Formats: sequence, structure tokens, C-alpha cells
Amino acid sequence: MLLYAILRIIDTVRCTIDLMSRLNKTRRRIWEKNGSGLKRKTDYLATEEPLEIRLSAGGETRTAAITMRTPGNDYELAAGFLFNEGLISEKEQIAQITYCVGSNRNLQEYNSLEVQLRLGSLPELPQLDRHFFMNSACGICGATMLDDLRDRGLVDVPQGIQIDEAVLNRLPGELRKAQHLFESTGGLHAAALFDVDGTLLALREDIGRHNALDKLIGWGLLQNELPFSKNILMVSGRASYELLQKAISASAPLFCAVSAPSSLAAEIASEFGITLVGFLREDRYNVYTRRERILT
Amino acid sequence: MLLYAILRIIDTVRCTIDLMSRLNKTRRRIWEKNGSGLKRKTDYLATEEPLEIRLSAGGETRTAAITMRTPGNDYELAAGFLFNEGLISEKEQIAQITYCVGSNRNLQEYNSLEVQLRLGSLPELPQLDRHFFMNSACGICGATMLDDLRDRGLVDVPQGIQIDEAVLNRLPGELRKAQHLFESTGGLHAAALFDVDGTLLALREDIGRHNALDKLIGWGLLQNELPFSKNILMVSGRASYELLQKAISASAPLFCAVSAPSSLAAEIASEFGITLVGFLREDRYNVYTRRERILT
Repeated sequence: MLLYAILRIIDTVRCTIDLMSRLNKTRRRIWEKNGSGLKRKTDYLATEEPLEIRLSAGGETRTAAITMRTPGNDYELAAGFLFNEGLISEKEQIAQITYCVGSNRNLQEYNSLEVQLRLGSLPELPQLDRHFFMNSACGICGATMLDDLRDRGLVDVPQGIQIDEAVLNRLPGELRKAQHLFESTGGLHAAALFDVDGTLLALREDIGRHNALDKLIGWGLLQNELPFSKNILMVSGRASYELLQKAISASAPLFCAVSAPSSLAAEIASEFGITLVGFLREDRYNVYTRRERILT
Repeated sequence: MLLYAILRIIDTVRCTIDLMSRLNKTRRRIWEKNGSGLKRKTDYLATEEPLEIRLSAGGETRTAAITMRTPGNDYELAAGFLFNEGLISEKEQIAQITYCVGSNRNLQEYNSLEVQLRLGSLPELPQLDRHFFMNSACGICGATMLDDLRDRGLVDVPQGIQIDEAVLNRLPGELRKAQHLFESTGGLHAAALFDVDGTLLALREDIGRHNALDKLIGWGLLQNELPFSKNILMVSGRASYELLQKAISASAPLFCAVSAPSSLAAEIASEFGITLVGFLREDRYNVYTRRERILT
């Protein structure tokens, strides 16, 4: 009994101090090309993991949102989300925030939290984010999300192609030249499709990075250009879980980003056999997974 | 009757050629500071408008998604979205895509489209994006979204503060210095709160730009620092509709972005009385709305 009480206290303390703050970056062994040769090194990627925000009031509990986030300050994230969505209007309406610790601790201990409200009943909840599927209470994490993709029928991308390093370094310049809207507004994401010789096949722009890639893959579908198994996908910004998920749908073996990938982007690329290139510039790049498709 | 037929044909042609492509940027009169003095000029902002994607099959019609997007290639966006979400697996499942032209043409003529599927019944639909509220069939646009915010009880931000231009130009440097995670991963968004003297009060980072601002405002709520009516909000990236919506929740009179704002960000800032600053760097900035809060 005493042992149980102590364990409970330890658990509460661990939850309360928002432990995930130390997990906001993830170590990964990568290959870096900067100057001469491809060098193996240890790098840090911004951690990307789902957070489920559950609400409870009047004896009822429901999921209010699932968002891809960087762990840390999760209680603030939940409080700010509820406030900004108009679900609460003052701090006093929050009785308590606790992590929802499930049976499989390693996987998702701090990816699900519950906000107890001082309200007679649950407020009318906004709709869940369209990109997520819930499978069970208190059990969401990056690994279960990859399983969900397998369940949806997504399979490994084909071995497909190899690309010369010199061609790779030319892609950012080609992308930029074709970004007409960015030129005039300075405010758009782009997604582009290249062949292995570096020829631009199509480019789409949008204020939302997901939309730019949806447009490009929609072009492929409507023009009978899918799958993209002999091509290179490139985006003007960062690489996240959701973008890689779309690349797998399109069977694209090579995904390049001008900026950084997230931890989960690298994980999903590794899992489904995609070569993930980040920080791709004229004179440098990093390879996070499957470097065998790049000829150096 | 003939006239009606002709009008119908014209209408169909207009819809089919994806007319919104010409509306992917929006003109706006702004003030630019670049070198000496604040100059009035005409600028172009990336257009941000909602797109509703409706599905019909087996005599049923339902909304599958509402997404904030830049008009143009909307049919591709819809097709790519459906494909990437696993709702369709081949082009042949699409019978037709048409814009859903409603009664109030000026507002939303090309913000709603319908995909007719060659399926016996509607596929199981993903949940709607959490950020949007539907009010009526075929009637969504930026203006109706602003009305929704009024309906939710959001009011104009207070006149609040004025800030010296020299302080303004120091903010990007202060922001960057405090972005510890960005330093090590190169892959994070930041949202920060400053006072009018340029002192950093709080900063939060996340892989998602919305999350970074939710965390910051959640900090304000939990620490009794809300409303932010005497403070400046600043983000490391672009300014979109959703970020400005959060700024209004927090009653922040001044919103600064390192990069470009969208058309709808400027509209919502204007509507709710926020001073919106974009492309804020050490030696330059643009003001899109309410320049009276900046002392030059």
C-alpha cells in the first residue's frame, strides 16, 4: 500500500514537471556532404510526435484534438489550444492537467494528456484533425502511426532509381527558378517533381505545404503520371511526417527538402524505404536514410 | 431558355478551366521601410482562402475536408487529397469534379468543389480539420470565416501600445538568440512575446507553427499573463489566418512575422484592429495594417 502510494507520487511528479522537455530533439546517425566526401556524423532532429488532448467534465471524457507537436510545454499547448479554440475562457475552468499514462509505457507515456474541466459538462468539441486515426484510448505515438499506415495498405516504395550527386545539388536552383508565385509574394511553399537527370516535370505552390504536395500528386493522378517511382520529389521547406506519408502514397523513392526533416519524417522514410535528403543546397546536403540511391 | 442554356455553358466553362489560378495573389497597399522613411507602395500577398472539398456517391453528398489554400489547381488539390488519404486509389474512380456555385457568387464562387465518385456509396470519411466551423452548404470564404470569429465572441484588440521603430528592428535578433532548439536542429518554428522595450518575456518552439503560438498563449493563461494587450507577438515564419486568429484570442495589438503574411492574415488583422508587420529584419520591415502603433 505504501509502495503503491509512493509510486503514485513519483508518477504524478514525473508527469507534472512536463518531462518531455528533454525529448524535444532526437539523435540520429546521418551522412553529411559539405565540401569533400560524404561523412558519417551524429545529428539532432527536431522531435515530432503526436499529442492527444483529452477533455473530461461531468463524468465524461472525450478526445478534443490530436496534433503533431514537438514534446515540451505540453500542458501549455493543451491550455493554449483550448483557449484559442474558445473551449475555455479562463484558467479557473481548468481543474487539473495530467499525462494519461497507459499500459504500454515505452511507446506513448507522454503523448496523451487529460484536461479536467470545472464545467458541468463537456463543451461542444471541434472536429478532430483530418489526418489522424484513433485506435485506442491512451495509446498513440509515432510507432503506432506507422502501423496505421501499413493497415491502410501503404507499402515500401520500389528501389527505383539512383541519382548523381551533381544533379542533386542542381535541384534547389531549378526549384527556385520555377517558383513564380514565391518571387512576387515571398510567401509560398512549393513541391516539385524531377526526373533523375534533374529535369523539372511539374511544380505546384500553395500557402500550405501539405496542399502544395497534394496538388502535385493530384496532377500526377489526373495526368496518369502516377506512381512517381522513377522520380524525385522536392519541397521548398521542411520535411514532416505528413509530407513523407504522401510521398509513400505516390511511391516516390527519393524525397528532398531545402530545410530540416523532423525525427518522425526520418523514421517513416526509413520504415518505408525512402531516401530522405535534407538541407539540400547548391554545395551541400544531408542524407538521413537509404543513401544507396545517391551516386557520389 | 436559350439565354439560360448559354449562361449555363459559360458557367461550366468558367468552372472547368480552374479560374482561380489568376487569383493566387492579392494586391494590397502597404507601408515599406527599407532604408530611409516609410513609403506607401502596392504589394502582392499570397492568397489564402478556404476550399471545401465535397464528395458525392450513391446519391449522397458530404464534406470531406476544408483546407486553407492558395487558389489555383484546385481540382488537383482535391484529387491529390483524396488519393493521399486513401479515399480513392485510381483516377477512374473520379467521375467529375466541378465547382459548387452557390447563391452568393461574389463571396465564394470558387471556394467549394464537388467530386463525384464512381462508387456505390461514400467512402468512410476522415474527420474534418479541427479549425473550421461549417455554417451552410456552398457558402464558405474568408469573409464568412471572419464573421464566424465574431459569432464566437472575439472582439477588436485594444489600442494598447506604441513601439519605437528601432526596438522593432531589434526583435528578430532577440528571437533568434533565444531559439535554442532551432540552433541545434535547424527545424523549429518559434513564437515569442516581447514588451514595448523589446524585452523578451517568453518564447516557445515547436515543429508546428500553430503549436508554438498555442504553447505561448497557454503559458500566458496558466501564468496569469493574459491578455497580451501591452505586448508584441512575434513568429519566426509566416503569418497566416490561423495565427492571427490566435493573436486576437490573446488580445495582442501587434503581430510581427519574420516572413510574409497571407492575404487573409492581413484582412483579419485589419478587421480586428491588429498592427501586422511582415518581413521584419534588422534593417527593414513592411506594415500591412494599423501603422499608427509604430513610432518612426
